Amino acid sequence: MPTIQRVEVQDIRFPTSRELDGSDAMNAAPDYSATYVILHTDADDGITGHGLTFTIGRGNEICVTAVESLATRLEGHSLADITADMGAYWRELTSGDSQLRWLGPEKGVIHLACSAMINAIWDLWAKREGKPVWKLLADMTPEELVRCLDFRFVTDALTPEEAIGLLKRREAGKAEREASMREHGYPAYTTSAGWLGYSEEKMRSLCREAIAAGWEHFKQKVGGNIEEDRRRARILREEIGEERLLMMDANQMWDVDEAIANMRRLAEFRPHWIEEPTSPDDVLGHAEIRHRLAPIGVATGEHCHNRVMFKQLFQADAIDFCQLDAARLGGLNEVIVVLLMAAKHDIPVCPHGGGVGLCEYTQHISMFDYIAVSGSLEGRLLEYVDHLHEHFVDPVRIDRGHYQIPDAAGYGVTMKASSLEAHRFPGGSAWQ
Amino acid sequence: MPTIQRVEVQDIRFPTSRELDGSDAMNAAPDYSATYVILHTDADDGITGHGLTFTIGRGNEICVTAVESLATRLEGHSLADITADMGAYWRELTSGDSQLRWLGPEKGVIHLACSAMINAIWDLWAKREGKPVWKLLADMTPEELVRCLDFRFVTDALTPEEAIGLLKRREAGKAEREASMREHGYPAYTTSAGWLGYSEEKMRSLCREAIAAGWEHFKQKVGGNIEEDRRRARILREEIGEERLLMMDANQMWDVDEAIANMRRLAEFRPHWIEEPTSPDDVLGHAEIRHRLAPIGVATGEHCHNRVMFKQLFQADAIDFCQLDAARLGGLNEVIVVLLMAAKHDIPVCPHGGGVGLCEYTQHISMFDYIAVSGSLEGRLLEYVDHLHEHFVDPVRIDRGHYQIPDAAGYGVTMKASSLEAHRFPGGSAWQ
Repeated sequence: MPTIQRVEVQDIRFPTSRELDGSDAMNAAPDYSATYVILHTDADDGITGHGLTFTIGRGNEICVTAVESLATRLEGHSLADITADMGAYWRELTSGDSQLRWLGPEKGVIHLACSAMINAIWDLWAKREGKPVWKLLADMTPEELVRCLDFRFVTDALTPEEAIGLLKRREAGKAEREASMREHGYPAYTTSAGWLGYSEEKMRSLCREAIAAGWEHFKQKVGGNIEEDRRRARILREEIGEERLLMMDANQMWDVDEAIANMRRLAEFRPHWIEEPTSPDDVLGHAEIRHRLAPIGVATGEHCHNRVMFKQLFQADAIDFCQLDAARLGGLNEVIVVLLMAAKHDIPVCPHGGGVGLCEYTQHISMFDYIAVSGSLEGRLLEYVDHLHEHFVDPVRIDRGHYQIPDAAGYGVTMKASSLEAHRFPGGSAWQ
Repeated sequence: MPTIQRVEVQDIRFPTSRELDGSDAMNAAPDYSATYVILHTDADDGITGHGLTFTIGRGNEICVTAVESLATRLEGHSLADITADMGAYWRELTSGDSQLRWLGPEKGVIHLACSAMINAIWDLWAKREGKPVWKLLADMTPEELVRCLDFRFVTDALTPEEAIGLLKRREAGKAEREASMREHGYPAYTTSAGWLGYSEEKMRSLCREAIAAGWEHFKQKVGGNIEEDRRRARILREEIGEERLLMMDANQMWDVDEAIANMRRLAEFRPHWIEEPTSPDDVLGHAEIRHRLAPIGVATGEHCHNRVMFKQLFQADAIDFCQLDAARLGGLNEVIVVLLMAAKHDIPVCPHGGGVGLCEYTQHISMFDYIAVSGSLEGRLLEYVDHLHEHFVDPVRIDRGHYQIPDAAGYGVTMKASSLEAHRFPGGSAWQ
């Protein structure tokens, strides 16, 4: 097994704000960006490990600085030593340097940077095993998998022993579920028609195209003017009909009481869930909103920064859907801890997609969840947004509203060299 | 009123790890550091605004990068425009650039950077008014004060109208309380004897010196080996006797059940509170610990990253003492929102001191809280740590275990030019 010799980091940005792709009430004009990490080893096999954390433009340089500050904590480690006890290495990287830990702990820029690095290790590991990450995980024994995890601060909700027990109970049927994924793919919903910055005409034509392509589940951005939100909901319901699902996403725009009042005015459009109704830190606020808005579901997670926050969302019965983010949590190890807690609490995981590279990550997470952790598709839908996939060597493949199982080895976010070159900030050609 | 023309930022570090000052179970060897901000204006009065955020060494460069990324959002603003509606400016700096907000939101590196900048504005404002910050605040009308605040995400716990009402009810007696502060100062406790890295001999001699200097309240670091914690508690109780208060601080070392088990083994030493028993994000965990450990108090806050987290700590009856941090919250504006919520919930605020500059900040916060917000000293103790004060132009003054009221204009963290020069990282003489 090779030794990681150098952590390369690049500031990669896409000028998406020019078309208002990804526009919502909180994030009016994002430039989808990646703090992009490449792990170089001493092996002569040409394999490198690729990971990214997602940001929306300005500030990406701060995450780049953070990766540079963390790099020496990874350089010089052998992949074998890391993977032999990856739970221990994970804690070492995220918390082992108490001076760097102070900047979070386990949140914000420093945790985002850890995520890119951790995911790059998984990519390297899976590429060397010749497997996609979902398969690398699904083939582990429960004990091997749990050894990759750090249960610090969540043992009151889930112990390693409980996790092993849960995984063992799911071993029956794994092969059938893997075969089912290969045949049918993983069900998804699309956010592409509902961005706040799009005109009525653009929304209608995108809806029609999506329905023709087989989509059954749609998401609308809300949180602007409430009358405008209602007008756009009406347009979407006209286009998608009464049977298809309509989700709504407020992107944290409301206070608790405001969320309840506004959603009561949107209830006639029968939203399946309200996503990010308020501050992502407000566990008790989400519980209050959920209690008062039932049967409208409450979803959150893309800004939920670590397993301790998700633990509380589960303990407080605050959410109906867990929308963990593959690059805001501290990489795949922490994602798996959240999958396990969600399974124990019987909360469906519908990961946050979109941005750049998030869909490429989350297909591995949801397929692994179905095959080995929750064993269920009930209430599960994987977010799909059709931006920027062309920049990846092995982009996601969608058919009739379902993610098709990824076959390429690794964690999916390896970008084309030409795309990296063109979108390097500020020197790349896309920024001239 | 002047216009802020330039935001200067410096990476200032003190090699405190050489003596294990500040050592605890989580933070074994901190180098107390400051991301140090100086606001330069177009006025020819020589007045500059100074603010800092506190870190413990490595990673300070990431906060410096974040200030540089935020600087253009402050440069070019007139102080008059900012102070005319500082609540609005506060939201603009912390959340107005959605691309930068993504990196938090309102947490981690980006919020630490905002804190240094916001506190520098308060320093500039107070210096121009010729008042210490506590006095600038205490002299405002309730309406003027509330206009400095942003209640986003906390209106379910406290509205601006409620805040005005609370402040109005405290107007009676303000002059007497200010006079009392001038005469008696604000009661404090000392952490100086209890650091984890100190020998028994050093602990004993520091206790004796502290008692001779009039200290009545002591804090011990715990969270290492439990037998060792017990041994050190016994030493401290021997030295301070049965009547003086002994606090304990675990610096987040324990899981929830572990905290309860360990504190039951330390209960015989009658701790006044257990501070940071577990993850700072674990609101429900703190509530559980408090419920099961009563009558031992639960304290936390130095890593509590924003008003939304404190709101929940209050709502969940999770803490007995609120230990807000002047430079981890988004500067003084957010601190005041927390003071108001704490007063409403009748929770004493005992701010986090120590590090570099935190005591210089918190004296203003606690004196203002007593004079104008809570109106009470019951259960309140201000932390004091006797490190690094010699580097400030107007250091805190302590007499018989009480902070003496600061008279110098500003927010107290202006460092001597010679100290800045010597501790600039990595070029300063302290690092050669």
